Amino acid sequence: MNTRVAIIGGGPSGLLLSQLLHMRGIDNVVLERKTRDYVLGRIRAGVLEQGLVRLLEEAGCAGRLHAEGFVHDGTLVAYGNEIFRVDFTEHTGSPVIVYGQTEVTRDLYDAREKSGGPIEFNVEDVAIHGADTDAPHVTYAVDGTARRIDCDFVAGCDGFHGVSRQTIPLTVRREYEKIYPFGWLGILSETPPVNDELVYANSARGFALCSMRNDNLSRYYIQCSLSDSPDDWTDEAFWQELKRRIPAEQAGRLVTGPSIEKSIAPLRSFVTEPMRWGRLFLCGDAAHIVPPTGAKGLNTAASDVHYLYHALRDFYDNGSSAGIDGYSETALKRVWKAERFSWWFSSLLHRYPDQSEFDLKMQIAELDFLRSNAAAQKAMAQNYVGLPY
Amino acid sequence: MNTRVAIIGGGPSGLLLSQLLHMRGIDNVVLERKTRDYVLGRIRAGVLEQGLVRLLEEAGCAGRLHAEGFVHDGTLVAYGNEIFRVDFTEHTGSPVIVYGQTEVTRDLYDAREKSGGPIEFNVEDVAIHGADTDAPHVTYAVDGTARRIDCDFVAGCDGFHGVSRQTIPLTVRREYEKIYPFGWLGILSETPPVNDELVYANSARGFALCSMRNDNLSRYYIQCSLSDSPDDWTDEAFWQELKRRIPAEQAGRLVTGPSIEKSIAPLRSFVTEPMRWGRLFLCGDAAHIVPPTGAKGLNTAASDVHYLYHALRDFYDNGSSAGIDGYSETALKRVWKAERFSWWFSSLLHRYPDQSEFDLKMQIAELDFLRSNAAAQKAMAQNYVGLPY
Repeated sequence: MNTRVAIIGGGPSGLLLSQLLHMRGIDNVVLERKTRDYVLGRIRAGVLEQGLVRLLEEAGCAGRLHAEGFVHDGTLVAYGNEIFRVDFTEHTGSPVIVYGQTEVTRDLYDAREKSGGPIEFNVEDVAIHGADTDAPHVTYAVDGTARRIDCDFVAGCDGFHGVSRQTIPLTVRREYEKIYPFGWLGILSETPPVNDELVYANSARGFALCSMRNDNLSRYYIQCSLSDSPDDWTDEAFWQELKRRIPAEQAGRLVTGPSIEKSIAPLRSFVTEPMRWGRLFLCGDAAHIVPPTGAKGLNTAASDVHYLYHALRDFYDNGSSAGIDGYSETALKRVWKAERFSWWFSSLLHRYPDQSEFDLKMQIAELDFLRSNAAAQKAMAQNYVGLPY
Repeated sequence: MNTRVAIIGGGPSGLLLSQLLHMRGIDNVVLERKTRDYVLGRIRAGVLEQGLVRLLEEAGCAGRLHAEGFVHDGTLVAYGNEIFRVDFTEHTGSPVIVYGQTEVTRDLYDAREKSGGPIEFNVEDVAIHGADTDAPHVTYAVDGTARRIDCDFVAGCDGFHGVSRQTIPLTVRREYEKIYPFGWLGILSETPPVNDELVYANSARGFALCSMRNDNLSRYYIQCSLSDSPDDWTDEAFWQELKRRIPAEQAGRLVTGPSIEKSIAPLRSFVTEPMRWGRLFLCGDAAHIVPPTGAKGLNTAASDVHYLYHALRDFYDNGSSAGIDGYSETALKRVWKAERFSWWFSSLLHRYPDQSEFDLKMQIAELDFLRSNAAAQKAMAQNYVGLPY
């Protein structure tokens, strides 16, 4: 098979890139290791920056998002019994949109299928060859049958554990990582959210987050030990602990119910440099991971897609390699800013095992400052709604 | 002897409080362990916030400051060969004034002497008695002769090692501390400053600061090991190292010369709570220490003096105890914000022995963000010129 762009990975970044390229007449093929249902079974956060919303509009996939998504003009930040609001729209002119990542992925699959976009599922043994030449190709197997795609470019959208990043030689690759000494225990429950905007809470017992998918589907998280397992936590124990970590007013009106999903996620900051090796480009989790505080994962993947999409258009439409040559540097600039924000926002809200009493006072002083200072709120809001591409 | 306010410590906070109270007809006595010349021999930074300038004006001690001080409308921040400027006046409407702390102290001594304000020098064995009663008194000795002052209130302006803080029982006192794993090696030299505004530099070899006292008196600092001694550093070695830590342009026009002072200072963050015990009030270094990055030491002492001065006026002029009762809480609120800023600015600019490659990238990302984001610069500038009292 021949195509212009071989896209490794059928998650939201691979699909978004595929659909955007398709709209511009740039042939591409998506290779996905799992099935569509498996991909759509993954539960992920869903706070969308305006940049991602605009990309989805350009991809013709924003209809349901605008009909069903929730516009959030701000967020609440709590510490102890103190609580304050940061108004995104007031400070930046933009809200964020709460719309599940699963729904984004579903809309993208529907669009790709409607336009007959080639997606290969259940692919095994993917290998990228000749990425440092002008004629790369990708080999893989489906049902035990070996296949090959010859292409101009390879987009590595296959996540942290994918083959794309590993294809870049260790002599070229440099990796930066921070493992946080705690996890997030999250539950999904068919209950009305405690608040119509998110509540990020710093408490003496650890971080908590009140989030939601819709009017009757709540998502709550609490910081937990990395040695915990979801089975250690009954629903009752989870709700009890959550109530102790959020202000009394919110705890008083929290509606509890059985969990329909319960899981623990570790927190990691990770960046690989460069994000381009010859004709292989990394996008999203293949190149970088953020802790979920501030919901920058999908949004930062989207900014990579934006830069790569424009670089490829520039190549095919104008014969210019400038975008391609500058991809890594341009994408990384924004990636590091998102990494900084996610790290800062995580540092501000969690309890760390090695925190001194002075360090705890610094957290409270920073929260006090953020509450009282318009410029600090504006800087926070600009990061939260997404820095410009 | 009887007085209304016994002020322990004849450094700038004690003298400023003394002079302000005197202007309002509130009797006070200052007790200083050393001589006037000894106090004036201490070399300290001299970047004054507007709040302190206004207090000195109110104390009638701002004439020379306005004639000889340097108005700085901004500062430079460098990292590697990158450099950018934060404009204080643009972001906050206020500059800072560069005027040595020694000069502030000299002006205050001159004013106290001109008005015949009682200052006892060379006092020994100071002890504060009955601070938790309505009738405290202070005992001390001069030349081996025991003396006693009966007073309404005691102001503890005697610094980190003074007796005032130690007078507050350990059952009441709570202390917060961070010791930084490095020091500042500073030199004073009769050379023109490399730049007309301060240059704060983050470099791969550690922090550096280019500061000044006047057109022909420069003050430079470099981060050094705590195990270093000033004798380990020849002037030549100092200048060489400084040049490697500042951008090439600044290094190229640095004028070097013999040092007239060379010393190493450790960096510490420290706060004691509460700042009031009965009729004893702590001001300045007696209650809190900041690392020198951002020059908040004298300025934060000044905000304590402001609150205590107004509390005492309120007591004597209006018979209200509200200011006195609220002193600790009010002063600490601003103290913790200054602690946060000094800690943040130190964290941003120094090399730490336990920093990972990821942590270093976070420093650079934060500097990149500060350079590119007006709201972040405004928040920084507001802290630098001084948060409102």
